[in-house]
Amino acid sequence: MRIGVLTGGGDCPGLNAVIRAVVKTAEHKYHDEVIGIRDGFSGLIRNKTHPLDLARVSGIMPRGGTILGSSNRDNPFKFAEYIGGKMVQSDVSDTAVENYKKNGLDCLIVVGGDGTLDIAHKFSQKGLNVIGIPKTIDNDLYATDITFGYDTAVTTVMEALDKIHTTAESHHRVMVVEVMGSDAGWIATAAGIAGGAHIILIPEIPFEIEKIARKIYERKGRGKHFTVIVVAEGAYPISGERTIKRIVEGSSETVRLGGVGEYVAAELERQTHIEVRTTVLGHIQRGGTPSAFDRILATRYGAAAVVFAHEGKFDHMAALRTPDIVSVPLEEALHQMKRVSPDGSHIVTSRNVGISFGD
Amino acid sequence: MRIGVLTGGGDCPGLNAVIRAVVKTAEHKYHDEVIGIRDGFSGLIRNKTHPLDLARVSGIMPRGGTILGSSNRDNPFKFAEYIGGKMVQSDVSDTAVENYKKNGLDCLIVVGGDGTLDIAHKFSQKGLNVIGIPKTIDNDLYATDITFGYDTAVTTVMEALDKIHTTAESHHRVMVVEVMGSDAGWIATAAGIAGGAHIILIPEIPFEIEKIARKIYERKGRGKHFTVIVVAEGAYPISGERTIKRIVEGSSETVRLGGVGEYVAAELERQTHIEVRTTVLGHIQRGGTPSAFDRILATRYGAAAVVFAHEGKFDHMAALRTPDIVSVPLEEALHQMKRVSPDGSHIVTSRNVGISFGD
Amino acid sequence: MRIGVLTGGGDCPGLNAVIRAVVKTAEHKYHDEVIGIRDGFSGLIRNKTHPLDLARVSGIMPRGGTILGSSNRDNPFKFAEYIGGKMVQSDVSDTAVENYKKNGLDCLIVVGGDGTLDIAHKFSQKGLNVIGIPKTIDNDLYATDITFGYDTAVTTVMEALDKIHTTAESHHRVMVVEVMGSDAGWIATAAGIAGGAHIILIPEIPFEIEKIARKIYERKGRGKHFTVIVVAEGAYPISGERTIKRIVEGSSETVRLGGVGEYVAAELERQTHIEVRTTVLGHIQRGGTPSAFDRILATRYGAAAVVFAHEGKFDHMAALRTPDIVSVPLEEALHQMKRVSPDGSHIVTSRNVGISFGD
Amino acid sequence: MRIGVLTGGGDCPGLNAVIRAVVKTAEHKYHDEVIGIRDGFSGLIRNKTHPLDLARVSGIMPRGGTILGSSNRDNPFKFAEYIGGKMVQSDVSDTAVENYKKNGLDCLIVVGGDGTLDIAHKFSQKGLNVIGIPKTIDNDLYATDITFGYDTAVTTVMEALDKIHTTAESHHRVMVVEVMGSDAGWIATAAGIAGGAHIILIPEIPFEIEKIARKIYERKGRGKHFTVIVVAEGAYPISGERTIKRIVEGSSETVRLGGVGEYVAAELERQTHIEVRTTVLGHIQRGGTPSAFDRILATRYGAAAVVFAHEGKFDHMAALRTPDIVSVPLEEALHQMKRVSPDGSHIVTSRNVGISFGD
Repeated sequence: MRIGVLTGGGDCPGLNAVIRAVVKTAEHKYHDEVIGIRDGFSGLIRNKTHPLDLARVSGIMPRGGTILGSSNRDNPFKFAEYIGGKMVQSDVSDTAVENYKKNGLDCLIVVGGDGTLDIAHKFSQKGLNVIGIPKTIDNDLYATDITFGYDTAVTTVMEALDKIHTTAESHHRVMVVEVMGSDAGWIATAAGIAGGAHIILIPEIPFEIEKIARKIYERKGRGKHFTVIVVAEGAYPISGERTIKRIVEGSSETVRLGGVGEYVAAELERQTHIEVRTTVLGHIQRGGTPSAFDRILATRYGAAAVVFAHEGKFDHMAALRTPDIVSVPLEEALHQMKRVSPDGSHIVTSRNVGISFGD
Repeated sequence: MRIGVLTGGGDCPGLNAVIRAVVKTAEHKYHDEVIGIRDGFSGLIRNKTHPLDLARVSGIMPRGGTILGSSNRDNPFKFAEYIGGKMVQSDVSDTAVENYKKNGLDCLIVVGGDGTLDIAHKFSQKGLNVIGIPKTIDNDLYATDITFGYDTAVTTVMEALDKIHTTAESHHRVMVVEVMGSDAGWIATAAGIAGGAHIILIPEIPFEIEKIARKIYERKGRGKHFTVIVVAEGAYPISGERTIKRIVEGSSETVRLGGVGEYVAAELERQTHIEVRTTVLGHIQRGGTPSAFDRILATRYGAAAVVFAHEGKFDHMAALRTPDIVSVPLEEALHQMKRVSPDGSHIVTSRNVGISFGD
Repeated sequence: MRIGVLTGGGDCPGLNAVIRAVVKTAEHKYHDEVIGIRDGFSGLIRNKTHPLDLARVSGIMPRGGTILGSSNRDNPFKFAEYIGGKMVQSDVSDTAVENYKKNGLDCLIVVGGDGTLDIAHKFSQKGLNVIGIPKTIDNDLYATDITFGYDTAVTTVMEALDKIHTTAESHHRVMVVEVMGSDAGWIATAAGIAGGAHIILIPEIPFEIEKIARKIYERKGRGKHFTVIVVAEGAYPISGERTIKRIVEGSSETVRLGGVGEYVAAELERQTHIEVRTTVLGHIQRGGTPSAFDRILATRYGAAAVVFAHEGKFDHMAALRTPDIVSVPLEEALHQMKRVSPDGSHIVTSRNVGISFGD
Repeated sequence: MRIGVLTGGGDCPGLNAVIRAVVKTAEHKYHDEVIGIRDGFSGLIRNKTHPLDLARVSGIMPRGGTILGSSNRDNPFKFAEYIGGKMVQSDVSDTAVENYKKNGLDCLIVVGGDGTLDIAHKFSQKGLNVIGIPKTIDNDLYATDITFGYDTAVTTVMEALDKIHTTAESHHRVMVVEVMGSDAGWIATAAGIAGGAHIILIPEIPFEIEKIARKIYERKGRGKHFTVIVVAEGAYPISGERTIKRIVEGSSETVRLGGVGEYVAAELERQTHIEVRTTVLGHIQRGGTPSAFDRILATRYGAAAVVFAHEGKFDHMAALRTPDIVSVPLEEALHQMKRVSPDGSHIVTSRNVGISFGD
């Protein structure tokens, strides 16, 4: 077989481990050839490809990023280009199909999130043999138990919390740490438990500033003059988003940074007169060498995808149904989100050990 | 309630996270008191105890080891002491029962491996309210999907392999790394996949030196002049253990170090004339700050044990049946070992990506 | 002797290593007693003290923060307190002197930055036997070659840059990372070199956005579609601070976060239409386990301070004059700042390897 | 100019940072060309070279090892080859000179230890324009204050000691950790201080087992039932090496592992009946991503070497004379070793904080 592979969407630790496993399984098990496609689907449109052999993937597993590059705005069905100084959108999916054939591909492995896999499914409908591998740092894809990159992101946040803890404790401070998770609070919850947070705010549980302040005072009453708060970027106050917008009004340039972490800090300072410091971890959550857990999971996904290709399971994606990697029809897998359940084990454990969700 | 807690057996990252979760759940959820028992069962025999409150467990989660201390040879049913320069064994379990009562305990949470939990079960039969929490770095306890400490140990080995990889590659060397796992090859297999090992030797799959040499030559044929081999300490050659013993004969003092890693290195050098270097990771695999995964798992175990205490689930232990923590009768849980299945996902994935098991 | 020790000012990795070395040297070398004073000078005012012995400092070296606590606004010569809902400032230094005597101290070791050491010097003039140990994460104290905490902060920033690098490269992004350094660019420069930054902006060298844009284009011309920029929080554009203020006008609440990193990102996006992402590392630079370098340096400072106490070198501070720790009169040491020299080895090396300073 | 660069001898973190700095300085500052020579001097003999440009060195700084490969037994003046099944030594230095010319080199930058730099000097005498960069993980080169790789090795050992500490403490164990340093105890001393070792054994200070045992008992007397001992591989008992040899007699195969760490452990167990565990860190001390300190130092060396080339300072090597990088005649620099001074600051500080050297 001649297998193409591309990586799409945001950066995620483990992408190189997937690519490596695809190449290693293809060569060692099947003596297949693998073609790497550069920069996501835009490489398929512009025919930027090169062979991937064992030498090329040697030593890449510990590295963050993707040796194939990625792209965020490369939907071939609505491809946006500047033509004559104007942004024009067009359907160039036929060009992509042509290049698939020109490269003599028997199959295309697409590693990506919901958006990227949706495009993969559309190419399946246009006749390409596509196999998906789910990728999101946020762990919010419904079809699979866990996604690679998530454990590494949780580790990065936990390490930041470990560092912030000592400062908070030495200086009697309230520290707010804003982390990834616009729709689901997985990273905030897991890293919050692991990093010893006292309050965790997530999109699944709207918060009240008063409840947060109460927890801070309760801790003060016990002689604990510091509090660590983890906030998922998608968390919001029960009283509605309106409040957040008010704060950043009149300053269009600084809106980007004034997220919910900033809002929580500002409101807490206003209500409690305690000093609050905010840290926004940002893109460091997407980088770094993948954790052992993620390297193994990514390797399993990559190896399974090649096996699925040989079994003809096209228009499917690899999914973890613990302890197995199974194939799931792409159509079923898409557009469903896995959110943190307020009755699930993470929240129950958190509440048991005294963590407040600001509700 | 008044809950006692002790930690027994070998060191394992996550013990402090368990203790912390026990105390936090006891205080926050139930307003219980917790009594820490020092140095495993020997603290129960000698009545070395102290209260554990929130202040005492503050900040301990990131630390390796156990703030309660542990002990390896403290079985109260066969307690060994030097009396008059002679080692004498006696049953002092009644003393332990007395101290349990003297401390006013309603329940005793015992964190330990197979041996420690066996003792816990015996105390149940003597009328104590005991709840077990499984602990082994080797991940080989049958009753639970995963044990805390394992992910951290795998990470430590993976990081060592990452370091060894670059030396092996720059210097065209064969590097043998001996890791923990006398009965089961979980650490070797997982860390081997994550650390990019080319050959993994585990107790579940007896190896042949010739097969290992063949893999080294096959790599050389592809221009890869280095090979990284991970060996679980319990791995052995198919031709029998006899060979290992021969090597260390005549040198009783050095036997301890001359493990299977050393054997593999010596035999490979003899057969291939390629330079081989051995590293024995030893106790660093038991230490260090627990990984995020282990902190969360340990916290879940600790919190669940207190809940089980309030539900009266004595003579049981907490066990992970993904995604839940359930209670399992101690009797059922003990004396069964979980080994790496040659048909399981780890081995299948490994073989797919070209890893050899020397068979 | 009876030696008091306190830590003042902002958090800094290595404080616990200093405290530990003070106690260990006092006990092992001189059989002295050590008294810990809580929360900086405020503990001396309120007489919050406790003995520090070997048991108390066991195992603290790897931990961030300070076991003694610290305080930021505790100048006994201008002590601020809320009295009757109003902030009142008064000179309570005599109370501090009294408590020094009440605790039977023969000497007080003060670990702190410029402000804290200035207070220490004033107490010397009031007759106390004071010895200073310099502390600043920013490495900008004139009197000493290097301060502890700096190497750890550089390492934290470097690790963040390593993580951001892979994302920048995979996604063709310009990434701006704002780091500590309001008056001096030591952290930005050292971490920038170590983390492979392409542009470093520091207070010592005012920048021009056009020059930054030019470097980005120059890289693009060589096929490098990403650029990593490190900005010290005190860097500013050559055209004057005015521009930064304009941006945050009208939004008093969000001013805190809209630092120079944000300014650089916004201006670059405006001028180049390339996507720019900003990360503000904040307080994680002050936390974490100290690096080997900092542990050794902090241990040397702590041990030397006790030796100086026995040599009667009061009103002095310990200072590193490579390779020795010497004593320097506090008066000489204060109020002088060490900035990055534009002709110094760090800047010269940076320019040699092609790093731009935006000038 | 056309500059060749090669790396020789053992692996050392920072080699890639040197290579990168050479290429970056050559291209950015001088528009020079750089030619990489593979596998040390053996690449010059066999003419295995390739151009090194900015793209080739992009992203290599964080990686351990050397992208050029190295070689241990490649002295062109005594080159050993198997010819007809027999090892034959010959002087092939003229071939190397020829290949230097064939590649059109104006200068050759040689990164290596004492042995490699000695060869470099001999090529200088044969008319080549050679510039040396000192490299040893052991920090024992006389001509330079500090060598890159050393700080990383110290960090690796410190991290291992941090891990071992918690196990030692939880289990009341004596732990022996054997580290690199056959002639000088720099790594053992620095890592011992930073890792909180209680006893450090180095080649510069012969030890007595009785003194070690006394320290263990002294600690026990203070309630400290654990002790951490760091042993440099070249440390030896005052009573002579003879004892070490006796232990491994009769077992020629296991001699390699039965180092001084093993000896100390065995003797201590014999004399104290306390359980002792040994860990031999081995090659993981040579690997891993370089520390910030080492990346900066390596970058300075690499950049300076290219500047020296343009200044015509051939037959010299770059050396750190804090805070400057200077050029030193190779002849003066070689064959002198820098050992840990028993009166130097490291030993004095160590003794002050109560560390024993077993003397």
